Amino acid sequence: MKRTSTLHRFAFLAALCFATGAVARADEGMWLFNRAPKKQIQSKYGFDLTDTWLEHVQKSAVRISTGGSGSLVSSNGLVMTNHHVGSDMLEKLSTKENDFIAAGFYAQSADQEIKCPDIEMHVLWTIEDVTDKVLAGVKPGMSSADANGAKRQARSQLEEEAKAKTGLHCETVELYQGGRYHLYSYKRYTDVRLVMAPEKGIAFFGGDPDNFEFPRFDLDMCFFRIYDGGKPLRPEHYLKWSRNGTTENDLVFVAGHPGRTERLFTTEHLEYLRDFSYPLSMRSIWRREVQLATFMGRSEENRRIAEGDYFGIQNTRKARTGIYAGLMDPAIMGAKLEAEKKLRAAVDANPEWKKQWGDGWDMVAQAKKTQKEFAVRFAALGGSSMALGGQLFGKAVTLARLADEKEKPNGERLREFRSSNMESLELQLFSPAPIYPDLEVENLTAGLQNLVELLGGNDATVVQILDGKSPRARAEELVHGTKLLDVAERKSVAAGGKKAIQESKDPMIRLASALDAESRKLRKRFEDEVDGPEKLGYAKIAAANFAVNGEDQYPDATFTLRLSYGTVKSYEENGKKVAPYTNFAGLYERADERDNKYPFELPPRWAKSKDVINLNTPYNFVSTCDIIGGNSGSPVVDKSGEVVGLIFDGNIQSLVLDIAYDDKQARAVSVDSRAIIESLRKVYGCGALADEIVGAPGR
Amino acid sequence: MKRTSTLHRFAFLAALCFATGAVARADEGMWLFNRAPKKQIQSKYGFDLTDTWLEHVQKSAVRISTGGSGSLVSSNGLVMTNHHVGSDMLEKLSTKENDFIAAGFYAQSADQEIKCPDIEMHVLWTIEDVTDKVLAGVKPGMSSADANGAKRQARSQLEEEAKAKTGLHCETVELYQGGRYHLYSYKRYTDVRLVMAPEKGIAFFGGDPDNFEFPRFDLDMCFFRIYDGGKPLRPEHYLKWSRNGTTENDLVFVAGHPGRTERLFTTEHLEYLRDFSYPLSMRSIWRREVQLATFMGRSEENRRIAEGDYFGIQNTRKARTGIYAGLMDPAIMGAKLEAEKKLRAAVDANPEWKKQWGDGWDMVAQAKKTQKEFAVRFAALGGSSMALGGQLFGKAVTLARLADEKEKPNGERLREFRSSNMESLELQLFSPAPIYPDLEVENLTAGLQNLVELLGGNDATVVQILDGKSPRARAEELVHGTKLLDVAERKSVAAGGKKAIQESKDPMIRLASALDAESRKLRKRFEDEVDGPEKLGYAKIAAANFAVNGEDQYPDATFTLRLSYGTVKSYEENGKKVAPYTNFAGLYERADERDNKYPFELPPRWAKSKDVINLNTPYNFVSTCDIIGGNSGSPVVDKSGEVVGLIFDGNIQSLVLDIAYDDKQARAVSVDSRAIIESLRKVYGCGALADEIVGAPGR
Repeated sequence: MKRTSTLHRFAFLAALCFATGAVARADEGMWLFNRAPKKQIQSKYGFDLTDTWLEHVQKSAVRISTGGSGSLVSSNGLVMTNHHVGSDMLEKLSTKENDFIAAGFYAQSADQEIKCPDIEMHVLWTIEDVTDKVLAGVKPGMSSADANGAKRQARSQLEEEAKAKTGLHCETVELYQGGRYHLYSYKRYTDVRLVMAPEKGIAFFGGDPDNFEFPRFDLDMCFFRIYDGGKPLRPEHYLKWSRNGTTENDLVFVAGHPGRTERLFTTEHLEYLRDFSYPLSMRSIWRREVQLATFMGRSEENRRIAEGDYFGIQNTRKARTGIYAGLMDPAIMGAKLEAEKKLRAAVDANPEWKKQWGDGWDMVAQAKKTQKEFAVRFAALGGSSMALGGQLFGKAVTLARLADEKEKPNGERLREFRSSNMESLELQLFSPAPIYPDLEVENLTAGLQNLVELLGGNDATVVQILDGKSPRARAEELVHGTKLLDVAERKSVAAGGKKAIQESKDPMIRLASALDAESRKLRKRFEDEVDGPEKLGYAKIAAANFAVNGEDQYPDATFTLRLSYGTVKSYEENGKKVAPYTNFAGLYERADERDNKYPFELPPRWAKSKDVINLNTPYNFVSTCDIIGGNSGSPVVDKSGEVVGLIFDGNIQSLVLDIAYDDKQARAVSVDSRAIIESLRKVYGCGALADEIVGAPGR
Repeated sequence: MKRTSTLHRFAFLAALCFATGAVARADEGMWLFNRAPKKQIQSKYGFDLTDTWLEHVQKSAVRISTGGSGSLVSSNGLVMTNHHVGSDMLEKLSTKENDFIAAGFYAQSADQEIKCPDIEMHVLWTIEDVTDKVLAGVKPGMSSADANGAKRQARSQLEEEAKAKTGLHCETVELYQGGRYHLYSYKRYTDVRLVMAPEKGIAFFGGDPDNFEFPRFDLDMCFFRIYDGGKPLRPEHYLKWSRNGTTENDLVFVAGHPGRTERLFTTEHLEYLRDFSYPLSMRSIWRREVQLATFMGRSEENRRIAEGDYFGIQNTRKARTGIYAGLMDPAIMGAKLEAEKKLRAAVDANPEWKKQWGDGWDMVAQAKKTQKEFAVRFAALGGSSMALGGQLFGKAVTLARLADEKEKPNGERLREFRSSNMESLELQLFSPAPIYPDLEVENLTAGLQNLVELLGGNDATVVQILDGKSPRARAEELVHGTKLLDVAERKSVAAGGKKAIQESKDPMIRLASALDAESRKLRKRFEDEVDGPEKLGYAKIAAANFAVNGEDQYPDATFTLRLSYGTVKSYEENGKKVAPYTNFAGLYERADERDNKYPFELPPRWAKSKDVINLNTPYNFVSTCDIIGGNSGSPVVDKSGEVVGLIFDGNIQSLVLDIAYDDKQARAVSVDSRAIIESLRKVYGCGALADEIVGAPGR
């Protein structure tokens, strides 16, 4: 059992470093590329992080719309990411007869590469600080609702203007919980083709039991190719491949897109998570995991079509369980409180600071208090596709809202309908990716049951939604009655605007329309009474933090490009040293030890390759780099900017990184670059692909 | 997917028969043996249910303390039950090296039969209506707390007196939610030995996916032998084995111990379940299922030691999911409300009735309203072993309370410490059955996390319990620090009385003692303010129901002996007829269809037996008998009282039977008596056992 032992816990606390009220030390930090930790790296490792280096790595990094990271690794637009990042596409491209998840895939030539239905890849091109412009419209004495409106208006306008000027995909990013706003401009690619994926059996060897564990033996990799104008992209920047890989204690860097952390949260905000928000969300997660497992058990085809959802929910569950455990640890929460007290004391000691920022913490606390009053209802009905479950209902909601939002000026629209996001929205809305009615019924049933559970069976909206039927009967009626399975129908409804929505007899659209008013009301209340004041509070805390601890701090993760650094490093667990590398020999041993039974069953290709593969090849390794969910697929590069690994996980002790960094035991887990090449050549017969990666023409 | 389709739902509603306010029809009813449905069976089937027949079946039926039913099936004390009822013992008798769950077991001779550590088998001997005696102490104007106390006092005294007089194990049973009290006297046996069990792979073939489904292919059987004075019991009554079994439409009976139904619950009580109690309990169930699966995935030994808990939680989850779905169905709830309105109208129309009973429903509603105020806290800390999880903590609570309760007069003790229950309590408390520290840590961690989740991390009791540590660290400290793993230590603490508890430094006992005061307070509040008034309310409703609809009604299930009846009968599903019998040929087909993969993998012995077994042997069959959880292991007998089957499940449509009976699609599922004999002889080489069952000497 690899778990946080008592021993570990105290060691962890001793090393604990809180961003709130303390300067980052050790290898902490998910740094902004325009505020890179040059000083720290120079002083700790004597390495000079140049602007050229930063630009090269930044422009080689890729953000993937399925929720992960990747990198350009050849002059022909080859993108490396994780199997579990690419698996959403693998599923969408698979059929009952041709299951790429189970069997893997390799395009022997360019014409065999398969176009993905609805993926986007973004390469970050420029960053501009637009804090002043976003906040320009926020006047003293303004209600937080009005302040929120002014900020939204300014952000949409900045994005639209930047897009018009550069042609790039532009997003304003809210950093430090609202303390800063940066404008990120991306090159955006949607012609992405599948090149190579191993079998899930090796990519996710060990399955849920080994997920977030180390030692580990996963070939969690996948290759796509970006096309531009119908031809492979010739990128300005791409990462070269290291010839030698790493050895223990080498300095390495991770460039990727960490999704979300909660390190700057106030204690009361964390308590809200622990005592209110997590109990609510964990319930839904546990329910989904159990329901999907039951659904999948019924037939092989059910298993195939739900496997991706299932992996997603298991992964989320395991990650959140780790964070939740951290929130439940009185010592960790106590240390957070101490750090907060220290910062507040420093603020209170300066009358000017106290006046400007002293009430930031209380504003956040008040926002969470308000949120509690309607958070359950908001969770049920207030989200961007509500929480009813199933893709079809989500599409109905989008269609119903699109008709309304399109008629509004850009700055007044709901954020996801802003003009700069319209292409992405339509890519999803009109995706030809398969939707399985059986799974839709299952998911919508689960969603409707969840609704009864959250709001009670006598709730007027619940009564209206169920329309006198049981959740399952109602889900069957809706899924079998709608025409939204058909992409042409979705396009036609979208083209028809408000009138098409109003006149539609499609039961899914009728339901989405009927719920729209309440849903919008809940969302408005959330934005005006919770999100708005909370952001204002956090802006004050951020300002106070900068004033007290200096500007050299990184913001919480926001699924935008960050740079982490650290070393390849062993750690201790239950009194024993855990070596930083595994190798292929260990893979075969682990399969033996678990009787080669699912999820420790080697794919046939691997069982056969034992004699031809170099068993001493380093396979997975750990480093102290500061990562979190969203970093999956990030390249690990060495000082020369060459690929030495591929991030795919953190160990179980790293899960608490969500709320606080630790380098005592917490480790990022990567596939070693050498294992990637060795397996491409020896196991998969992908010599051409390996050649492209290590010796691409033009190097 | 076998599910309640829309079609089914309306058919179901049309056939719906509510015990509340309506006379039972169709084959409805879990009847008391002293109020058997003679008239109904005579009128519907022309069969004369004699007192001799009833006595014979009653005294052949066995209640099993692991939560199921069984029956005596030979003159040598042989008891037949389900594998999943006996599996608790199979686990306790298994070791890492000798896993009876996986491999099965057969004692070739008497000396190979293995004594079980802590099982009790009860045979119901006499029933006496003691309603007047229990209620004698309840005076008009008494507070419900005092009324409760008077009833508890009377019940303990009646039990003690009856035991002194007859030497039997005596229990007063609360029927009709408190409308009647009967005194049940049992022959009690604790020397029970394992005779035969098949492999879990065939007993639970199809696992969770096929659980509660039909067609079905499970050999869910297990044989024990009762010993009395060191020798096999020579019972006065035992069931003979049918030579021919059944054919479709045959009348059959089930004598067993249904655990709990909620058919007489008021609408507001059901709404409380739907909107409050189920969301709370399902969350814990989902969490447990996910956590145990994770724990089991870590190693083969983890899997083995947690498998029983895991099956239990999966089974509970699937059953409750079915009930919960019924509660969420507006049509079912609406029909319940209509029936209730009708009964209330009849009561209100009679001024005397109205005065006596008219407020019964409101009393129940008020009790549920009060319960809501502290139900979460009560769920966390108020139960008889609180909800902290793990066997060791439960034993610590029992020890701490035992010391206090033993000093009180019998009538004033907590119910489970009454003198008539002391033997059973000590059997469990001092059981030598293995307790696995790793699983204890896991379960206690889950319990402690659940506590934080329910009460919040800042709750004073939570802070006290965690003692500054994370749930896992605290669980490790408690489990590794206690000596209660040792039976001798438990006995010594129990013998030491109050002084031993007060002076104990055992961390588990210290914690149990520290929580005792709050736990007792919560329990007292529950008994005085919820359970008491609720029972008084239900007693009124029961009286009203008897007055309006006559005495010919059965009470909700109470894990006491009941008689159900019905016929072997096919049903329709999704427009297709489902045949009432499966056979062995179907078993092999199902295994093929699912690639012989877990949980559809045939044990080697079965894979080999395909050519020798008669593939046309009826295997599992369905009947309209009214059963519920607790009926598992019940014998199915024909008109001559001979065994034709062994109840082990209900189909998915039967799950809603918890709140209302249906015979349109809901079916009880049994192993056919012919399959039992065929497999004993042809697959297991248990000829002697088969001979004992079908041709026992003295028949």
